[in-house]
Amino acid sequence: MNVVDIIAAKRDGHELSSEQIGWLINGAMEGSVADYQLSAWLMAVVLKGMSDRETADLTRSLVASGKRLDLSSLGGFVGDKHSTGGVGDKTTLVVAPLVAAAGVPMGKMSGRGLGYSGGTIDKLESIPGMQCSLTVDQFIEGVRNVGLVVAAQTPDLAPADGILYKMRDVTATVDSLPLIASSIMSKKIAAGANGVVLDVKVGSGAFMKTPDQARALAISMRDIGRGVGLLVRAVLSDMDQPLGWAVGNNLEVHEAVQTLRGEGPADLLEVALVIGGNLLEMAGKANSVEAGQDILRETLRSGAGLEKLREFVMNQGGDPSFIDDPHALPSAPVQRDLVARTSGWIAHIDAEAIGRASVEIGAGRRVKSDAIDHRVGFVLNAKIGDHVETGSKLATIHTSSDQAASQVEPAILNAFTISATPVAIPPVIMEVIA
Amino acid sequence: MNVVDIIAAKRDGHELSSEQIGWLINGAMEGSVADYQLSAWLMAVVLKGMSDRETADLTRSLVASGKRLDLSSLGGFVGDKHSTGGVGDKTTLVVAPLVAAAGVPMGKMSGRGLGYSGGTIDKLESIPGMQCSLTVDQFIEGVRNVGLVVAAQTPDLAPADGILYKMRDVTATVDSLPLIASSIMSKKIAAGANGVVLDVKVGSGAFMKTPDQARALAISMRDIGRGVGLLVRAVLSDMDQPLGWAVGNNLEVHEAVQTLRGEGPADLLEVALVIGGNLLEMAGKANSVEAGQDILRETLRSGAGLEKLREFVMNQGGDPSFIDDPHALPSAPVQRDLVARTSGWIAHIDAEAIGRASVEIGAGRRVKSDAIDHRVGFVLNAKIGDHVETGSKLATIHTSSDQAASQVEPAILNAFTISATPVAIPPVIMEVIA
Repeated sequence: MNVVDIIAAKRDGHELSSEQIGWLINGAMEGSVADYQLSAWLMAVVLKGMSDRETADLTRSLVASGKRLDLSSLGGFVGDKHSTGGVGDKTTLVVAPLVAAAGVPMGKMSGRGLGYSGGTIDKLESIPGMQCSLTVDQFIEGVRNVGLVVAAQTPDLAPADGILYKMRDVTATVDSLPLIASSIMSKKIAAGANGVVLDVKVGSGAFMKTPDQARALAISMRDIGRGVGLLVRAVLSDMDQPLGWAVGNNLEVHEAVQTLRGEGPADLLEVALVIGGNLLEMAGKANSVEAGQDILRETLRSGAGLEKLREFVMNQGGDPSFIDDPHALPSAPVQRDLVARTSGWIAHIDAEAIGRASVEIGAGRRVKSDAIDHRVGFVLNAKIGDHVETGSKLATIHTSSDQAASQVEPAILNAFTISATPVAIPPVIMEVIA
Repeated sequence: MNVVDIIAAKRDGHELSSEQIGWLINGAMEGSVADYQLSAWLMAVVLKGMSDRETADLTRSLVASGKRLDLSSLGGFVGDKHSTGGVGDKTTLVVAPLVAAAGVPMGKMSGRGLGYSGGTIDKLESIPGMQCSLTVDQFIEGVRNVGLVVAAQTPDLAPADGILYKMRDVTATVDSLPLIASSIMSKKIAAGANGVVLDVKVGSGAFMKTPDQARALAISMRDIGRGVGLLVRAVLSDMDQPLGWAVGNNLEVHEAVQTLRGEGPADLLEVALVIGGNLLEMAGKANSVEAGQDILRETLRSGAGLEKLREFVMNQGGDPSFIDDPHALPSAPVQRDLVARTSGWIAHIDAEAIGRASVEIGAGRRVKSDAIDHRVGFVLNAKIGDHVETGSKLATIHTSSDQAASQVEPAILNAFTISATPVAIPPVIMEVIA
């Protein structure tokens, strides 16, 4: 086999054989395929696409490049969830404790944030002491003893995906359904869970801008999972405005606690209940998704979810005092309120603009080596459909300096579109694909 | 400026600005644009194309990456020619001495052959003693004193093209009109001539398979030349069969001598006269291309062309005895005749198959480091339109061993298609684009 022939075949829109894909990924791992050959092939894939069969083969080759976690010693269903990334998406911090408290163990690998969508590991690491770099044994023991572990992606699971991912980021080859689907699913498959719910974000603040794109990605990922015996559900959820109120690491952890107390934003809770209801049904803990949601509502009401969060944080070395004391997490020195300049109904909140502004003030990373300021971010005071008067609070900016606040103030204000006529509250769950 | 944005713009089919193209090529030279970024961009160019303006800008950036030869001290028109590459294409060895003998100086940089089409430098270096790696001073002095120099491409002319070319070869990004046009023209512009005739080969044995492709490439190159004040003519010539009779380095040198003696194949002479006639007209030596061709016919008849070849070879250190003694060049130990198995008219001769077979027996290179056996090759005894009887000679294989001859014998025999009905001799010149 010859790498130039494989690149040329994809360039000309041909379907590659399983052997060609396996050979290429193996060559990328061993270094016999040069990085400039890999990137030319990636660009050809972006522009010419891949069939379902090729995408499944690519996923299998990525999984085969490293270890696959064996959770069979746990003796039962282990659940996982994954979000394609959005602004203000702290769903894991709500749904995972609820599901675990309801008796379905959750073992999740997660990434750090890059660009304008935050990462779960960053949010967790904003809790003092919290440790997310775990060994495989720590991971398995945590699932066994606590029923809930969230760990940073280890480089020995699907390492070839790491090679491709790093390359895609710097060669404008991120934007490809088969490359996204195979990247996500290779990590999910290698992480060893039995069932996963994929939260595919749709809208201006998400990677998938339209429901059609999101549906195609969801179906592709579901089919890849099916092919290797992994149960998959995909939830299409709205990202035309940030999820919940808070954007920024400590602020989002605080909002997760609020939500587990029954005092959180409605959209965040709904996404958590739909994802969790599906996990309970997949695990056989509930006869239907609706029955699963009822169980989770009771878990929330009883405080069992919040107690599971505490247990989970302590198991990974974190200081749980923030759960009882809202002032225990560090807060930003500057907090500036922004007010509406006109009255009306909120028609749109540009999630991407808010995400980009959050990176600008240090809540996220521009490049991998950037340090994060866990204290900073935004708290929205109004969401789409809400009525505001001139002068009423739209959002609070939390920054390390007045200068930083002034820098992003116009972008945050401009992110809000206010309509003179009433606007309906958009549904947060658009579709569930089973 | 940001390289990922530039790659993404081309990926999405947008036109790049002059500044973006200049910045990218400069970055490739300096190493700030990584090779894997360059190859991703090249693949995007292959699949999304470039506008005429972008192609011209790319050419200018490639020229600006190195030295540009200043031939102004020669005080008059200097001509050049370039072939896009074919099988049996020894046209330079015929046309350059004729034009120089007619009083128009020729200064040409040329490449070594790679793949199934031969390179002029390889053919020249098959002459004992011939030296083609010249300094700029030697180049200029040769044009001044002899009126004819052919030198190997030096790495300080359009060095960025060298970077791109090397990359394209190993990333399946060779096949792109704007990349081919800018690569050829950057070298022609940097080499300093005033006028160039491009011989764009068309057909099964050429890179351009159809007249439409060849015409588009020719027009693109002409327009690039116009933009920088370089006179350009493009000749579209047939490569549906090898040019002339001989394929292989010493064999082709021998055929050039035959042709300059008036005993060569008609198609080779015609291509040489059309290219040469255009050069004479461009240089102001003739009032029309036809008048230029008349001058060249007289130059041929008088033997002045052959004498110019002798002068040229001696100036570059070569032993000219092959001009008078056909046995002075080394010959292959095995010479095997192939005969027709049926009678009829030659309908097609697969030039690419013959080119590939010539590489197999050592007349060309598979990879740059391959050594060439100058003695080996093929001499065709029949061309399209010729009538053959069963048992009459089709070709002679010249190889270093019986084994090598047997290895390629079927391919050479199969390269000939014989028809039961008469076949017209195809025109060798398809079009001239001024």
